[in-house]
Amino acid sequence: MKNKAVVLLSGGLDSTTTLAIAQKQGFQVFALSFDYGQRHGVELERAKEIAEKFSVTDHQIMTIDLRQFGGSALTDSIEVPTHRNESEMNEEIPVTYVPARNTIFLSFCLAYAEVKNAQDIFLGVNAVDYSGYPDCRPEFIAAFETLANLATKAGVEGKEKLKIHTPLIEFTKAEIILKGLELGVDYSLTHSCYNPKENGTACGSCDSCVLRLKGFNEAGFEDPIGYSA
Amino acid sequence: MKNKAVVLLSGGLDSTTTLAIAQKQGFQVFALSFDYGQRHGVELERAKEIAEKFSVTDHQIMTIDLRQFGGSALTDSIEVPTHRNESEMNEEIPVTYVPARNTIFLSFCLAYAEVKNAQDIFLGVNAVDYSGYPDCRPEFIAAFETLANLATKAGVEGKEKLKIHTPLIEFTKAEIILKGLELGVDYSLTHSCYNPKENGTACGSCDSCVLRLKGFNEAGFEDPIGYSA
Repeated sequence: MKNKAVVLLSGGLDSTTTLAIAQKQGFQVFALSFDYGQRHGVELERAKEIAEKFSVTDHQIMTIDLRQFGGSALTDSIEVPTHRNESEMNEEIPVTYVPARNTIFLSFCLAYAEVKNAQDIFLGVNAVDYSGYPDCRPEFIAAFETLANLATKAGVEGKEKLKIHTPLIEFTKAEIILKGLELGVDYSLTHSCYNPKENGTACGSCDSCVLRLKGFNEAGFEDPIGYSA
Repeated sequence: MKNKAVVLLSGGLDSTTTLAIAQKQGFQVFALSFDYGQRHGVELERAKEIAEKFSVTDHQIMTIDLRQFGGSALTDSIEVPTHRNESEMNEEIPVTYVPARNTIFLSFCLAYAEVKNAQDIFLGVNAVDYSGYPDCRPEFIAAFETLANLATKAGVEGKEKLKIHTPLIEFTKAEIILKGLELGVDYSLTHSCYNPKENGTACGSCDSCVLRLKGFNEAGFEDPIGYSA
């Protein structure tokens, strides 16, 4: 019987590649997505299509309303910055940062893993092109793994340890794309834009689009999704 | 200006005493409660009354559906155990354990604290009468504090550290009650029962009622709430 893993699936390029890696490593995948009041609902539609395409065992969408606290351009009406160049992007924590988002997401992954008796959680975070988010750093992930093993029944009972896998953490965006293409990922299904048009088309100018386009360019492949002019 | 603190408020005896302690220490309180599919909705009604009685600055109720994952007698249709004596209670992790609950709750406290610029989070966990929950242990709390300081903007920017306060962690239930009475807590507002009657009356025989009644008995005071015969 395959080992079970919970995979955090946003519907973006990184999490989809991570899902492909988890399956390639032989895990039976339980995918978890969040409806957290993100302004770009197209993400969730893509997550559903991707979960179906990869024939995951189960796909849960957890609704949490982070807008209740406010504090981020991704959930509030703060304007998403555009046309920043890459050197500008790494200078500070951007306004698109959602407070404690990965801590919250990982906590739910932990609950889901515990209920399903999974010892493995996969997360598509990336420390190279990490856009300055504090909760994408390797030391954050390590601290969560320590916490997870203190928080759960299995940890207390000294059974198998829970492991947080971040297979992309040292990859550049280009390396992620090359890895995904090698595994047969169809990137036309994925969505990365922070500021899509109403029809779901990516803007091409937000931080996330800029990183994605640069990644495809460096990888030597064309991005299969459309961008608005 | 007062320092701000987020207090996790369940509506129970411990969290209400913790709120009183945070105010006594001079904090401006932002209370956070959860509607997580608990079978005993009376808890939340009490949390609202308590937040009002203490005139907190803000009280948020966050809705999360942990039933989506299943796995606990507090959210599923598994029967809540009754008439266990105290020695039985500490032998194993009880079925009333909700997977990763405190990890999830603390993650939301962290998000709320970050949005409100609070450096302090208060949690009424207790390691003495902790009913065997892994996520009530001091080492779990310490690990979350470490995580919190890696997860946030303030942590990255080397500003003031976030602190998790657990003022009751070494208290017996009797000591908690004596402390609360000293601070003027009206325990008739609080709710502890895992298995209340439809009108909200406590059962008197679940783990939580047994611990509460023993605490009042040892403290030498009568519990002001009613119990069903």
